[in-house]
Amino acid sequence: MTLTEHVPQVDTLALEPGDQISESLVRTLPGSAHSSSEVFAAEQEHIFETMWVRALRASELPGPGDFRTVQVGREGIIVSRDRKGRLRAFFNLCRHRGARVCSEGSGSGRRSSQCGHHAWTYDLDGRLIAAPNPHEDARHRSGGVRPARRPRARVAGLRLDLRRRRRTLVRGDGDGCGALSRLGDVESIEHHGVETLQVGQRITYDVKANGKLIVENFMECYHCATIHPELTEVLPEFADGLAAQYVVGHGAEFGEDVQGFTVDGPEGLGRIPGVTDDQDRRYFAVTIRPNVFVNLVPDHVIFHRTYPMGPDRTIVECDWLYLPEVVASGTDLTKSVKLFDLVNRQDFEACEMCQAATDSKKYADGGVLVSSEHHIAEFQSWATAAIA
Amino acid sequence: MTLTEHVPQVDTLALEPGDQISESLVRTLPGSAHSSSEVFAAEQEHIFETMWVRALRASELPGPGDFRTVQVGREGIIVSRDRKGRLRAFFNLCRHRGARVCSEGSGSGRRSSQCGHHAWTYDLDGRLIAAPNPHEDARHRSGGVRPARRPRARVAGLRLDLRRRRRTLVRGDGDGCGALSRLGDVESIEHHGVETLQVGQRITYDVKANGKLIVENFMECYHCATIHPELTEVLPEFADGLAAQYVVGHGAEFGEDVQGFTVDGPEGLGRIPGVTDDQDRRYFAVTIRPNVFVNLVPDHVIFHRTYPMGPDRTIVECDWLYLPEVVASGTDLTKSVKLFDLVNRQDFEACEMCQAATDSKKYADGGVLVSSEHHIAEFQSWATAAIA
Amino acid sequence: MTLTEHVPQVDTLALEPGDQISESLVRTLPGSAHSSSEVFAAEQEHIFETMWVRALRASELPGPGDFRTVQVGREGIIVSRDRKGRLRAFFNLCRHRGARVCSEGSGSGRRSSQCGHHAWTYDLDGRLIAAPNPHEDARHRSGGVRPARRPRARVAGLRLDLRRRRRTLVRGDGDGCGALSRLGDVESIEHHGVETLQVGQRITYDVKANGKLIVENFMECYHCATIHPELTEVLPEFADGLAAQYVVGHGAEFGEDVQGFTVDGPEGLGRIPGVTDDQDRRYFAVTIRPNVFVNLVPDHVIFHRTYPMGPDRTIVECDWLYLPEVVASGTDLTKSVKLFDLVNRQDFEACEMCQAATDSKKYADGGVLVSSEHHIAEFQSWATAAIA
Repeated sequence: MTLTEHVPQVDTLALEPGDQISESLVRTLPGSAHSSSEVFAAEQEHIFETMWVRALRASELPGPGDFRTVQVGREGIIVSRDRKGRLRAFFNLCRHRGARVCSEGSGSGRRSSQCGHHAWTYDLDGRLIAAPNPHEDARHRSGGVRPARRPRARVAGLRLDLRRRRRTLVRGDGDGCGALSRLGDVESIEHHGVETLQVGQRITYDVKANGKLIVENFMECYHCATIHPELTEVLPEFADGLAAQYVVGHGAEFGEDVQGFTVDGPEGLGRIPGVTDDQDRRYFAVTIRPNVFVNLVPDHVIFHRTYPMGPDRTIVECDWLYLPEVVASGTDLTKSVKLFDLVNRQDFEACEMCQAATDSKKYADGGVLVSSEHHIAEFQSWATAAIA
Repeated sequence: MTLTEHVPQVDTLALEPGDQISESLVRTLPGSAHSSSEVFAAEQEHIFETMWVRALRASELPGPGDFRTVQVGREGIIVSRDRKGRLRAFFNLCRHRGARVCSEGSGSGRRSSQCGHHAWTYDLDGRLIAAPNPHEDARHRSGGVRPARRPRARVAGLRLDLRRRRRTLVRGDGDGCGALSRLGDVESIEHHGVETLQVGQRITYDVKANGKLIVENFMECYHCATIHPELTEVLPEFADGLAAQYVVGHGAEFGEDVQGFTVDGPEGLGRIPGVTDDQDRRYFAVTIRPNVFVNLVPDHVIFHRTYPMGPDRTIVECDWLYLPEVVASGTDLTKSVKLFDLVNRQDFEACEMCQAATDSKKYADGGVLVSSEHHIAEFQSWATAAIA
Repeated sequence: MTLTEHVPQVDTLALEPGDQISESLVRTLPGSAHSSSEVFAAEQEHIFETMWVRALRASELPGPGDFRTVQVGREGIIVSRDRKGRLRAFFNLCRHRGARVCSEGSGSGRRSSQCGHHAWTYDLDGRLIAAPNPHEDARHRSGGVRPARRPRARVAGLRLDLRRRRRTLVRGDGDGCGALSRLGDVESIEHHGVETLQVGQRITYDVKANGKLIVENFMECYHCATIHPELTEVLPEFADGLAAQYVVGHGAEFGEDVQGFTVDGPEGLGRIPGVTDDQDRRYFAVTIRPNVFVNLVPDHVIFHRTYPMGPDRTIVECDWLYLPEVVASGTDLTKSVKLFDLVNRQDFEACEMCQAATDSKKYADGGVLVSSEHHIAEFQSWATAAIA
């Protein structure tokens, strides 16, 4: 007997042996697209700081002086309503010596914002209206410093554009900055009246995976049979891994015995009025590039936003939206929330499993997409082109 | 109703609208000066490892064999007293295989230092006096290795200079490496007899901000009304944000009802003998570049040292110094310590608020300094020149 | 009295003063060899991913379908037994979209491995034997993607070679990839029948030091008198720091009163049958480059593997191996394990003390090796040549 024992090959797991793999396989992006700091920085600059991103739901800020701070790319931004009820957005830094003006995540009814460092105070239009006046500072008119040239950025209810060039404001229309329809299209969102719904529950996930991996995972249902037993019980057609990517507007049908979009399928809540009979007992999903994906079921909407924090870390904020009267009534939403919270956790664990391999030399050329995943290649091409 | 709601500009908060801002505004350093790793490394090399830095109070090492380890720039240093009572300083690494010779932070009365790895032993002059002698090592005289060329560094009671070139030893004299007087000058320190006082309390703060931000914040009182309510109650003239930067030697006067430099102003401890009547009931502050700032009140001295650990992290060690008899008596120092501990926490929180913006593209050109902050520009110019 | 007190030199501790240091001193590697990210990456590539490394003990995987995941350089690897009982090794990533196929650290008796993301399933030969078949994927034969060219790597019972070029399989034979004998040679290992022993205890250490520092420390006993009082009590000849590097095959003898290799020397367990009378009551140690070191005593074997995680962090996995009947009997192994667990902790603390200085400018040229450490220079030369 010897100390050593010989072992054959250090192999990559093999693709060739069966007939399961079609010649329609296409390549994914190389592993570095999901692990490189340079790619991440370029995406922050050219995607999240340049394109329309959905910063928040406009209904989160119902009245003048309401505000919320959000991260957009690498910048901290305040979104707020001015006195006329218009949404405004400001970089969250004082023009004096750079302190964050709003340290809180949100607030309401403010007439002004006062920096916590030296009490410089800005009105809801972002104008400096007060500053302590030591010495001669009060005796002179402003003039020492010209305000920085304003970026021609625009904010929409669900979008925030930090680009330099003004562009036509588009709405979820499938262009480079718009929606990528899947399992339904933007019409579905319209019927659900997302802007009128209220947050019943918000859960924030800290995922140790690249933001694109999270979007890509959401875009296909090939994994559903493997990791989502509770979801496929409610949506039996998901068990075959197909979903309905080729039929825009198609929604996945609930199983026959299923009463609602809940764990184990007991009854849900009341149907949202705008939802049509065609849409009832169906599940729709829409991906809106670059950072939103939405699920729509008859009684609620699940609204995800991703905030990329690093090549291997992404914050996902997920809102469960219900009719205002449902939220106001204090109805127990547990069963309703629990299903997709489970799905989220299953998805994010899978994404973390994938992240681990992105810097392996054996994944340098990436993996493959089966035919029911081919639309992911379009997303990857778009992301690649965006930073080219 | 649509899903999106338009929002005007993503603006920077504006400087121009009022008469509060004087034309005397001057620019701060660019944001990168407070966030860049390259600037930080240059400061470590050209400031903290080249100029005089205050390493410790000489009185911390009263007798032969007393020692303390300190961080100076990126180097671990042992400061100790030799048999004749002279202060010495050594790099804290064994010439054999590099282990730290002193693992403890401090100690007293040692006759030698023995490395914990292979027991090489050095006397108080840093000479190797013993090493285990396996084999023929004992049979030869040393000669295999010449000691490294000594840096022409010097250490003073509160200073440690790692520079290569010898220079005239200066004492808090306002040159590039000396004190920057503010709210008093070095005379104040002399009257307080800092070297005779003892540490009543030491608090160490781990601040997530650049070291220069911490010094800059200390150098102005424009923020006092905003963030230091307890301090302005004791020193009412601080409420106008002016302090007395233009009058060297001026100390801020206690409020009429204030009994001592304590939270809410109850009585302090006995006056330090050297403090003159002119200095009584007054607060002085001195910044000594690059890493010390001191507050002096009639009954104690608050002595801060900064240890920059990274572009966005600084350790601040703060000592509350009292007369030896006060420390020996076991007097309750809580009220006395609490005031400036509060001030420190308020200041460091403000510095962390500022750190957040230093890498925003909207702070790339930095902020502005009002006239009562102009002396900060001198500090920034000095820091910039030091690494040029 | 003044605020400052002058201090002479900031010195390096000196080497020259006595006769303790022989002219036979030789230089170690420069400090950067133990602290640089570039050197670390080169070592991962050219040593740990290129040369034979001991991945695990073959006996950890007794039967078909048993597997364990290990880190080799920067790659996650599955080592498993196929149906014929042969050891196999695979990169732990699914060829589909890169998820880790085995998330568990180990398992037994598996017939196949199923990826947790999309259920692609591989047999024990690494062949894809099942994948969900949406749409036309099932209708075509594979062909879209060719498997990556296999690296000509080999795995041995204790070795895993990821190199591209096939090489003669060697066994602990002292060449560049083999054993560096010390305090005994590979014969000692043979007599102990390491492959027949079982793990009685495994302890994993997370050491904040470079992997080479850990190997170098293990290779000399010059430090034993200083940091290992319990070990030198059992092995008195270690107290002189010599060990027996120049006499391959020599084992250090137990002290006269010592009953066993235990703390304070009480009786050990039964002698391993293959151990000869010459080897009885002796301690042998062998370093097997790049990542294993082994201690052999009459009744057990202590087997260390290092997993470098960064320039300043190394995981050390240490197994205490005993006769199967000893492990099966549930005998209390505490006294036996405790001795070398203590030694390990003492060693790793020393390594961490050394790590601290590796990036000091005063250690840029490294330290020195006394004559009883000269063989470390050979190891350092080997490591330097390996990445040249």
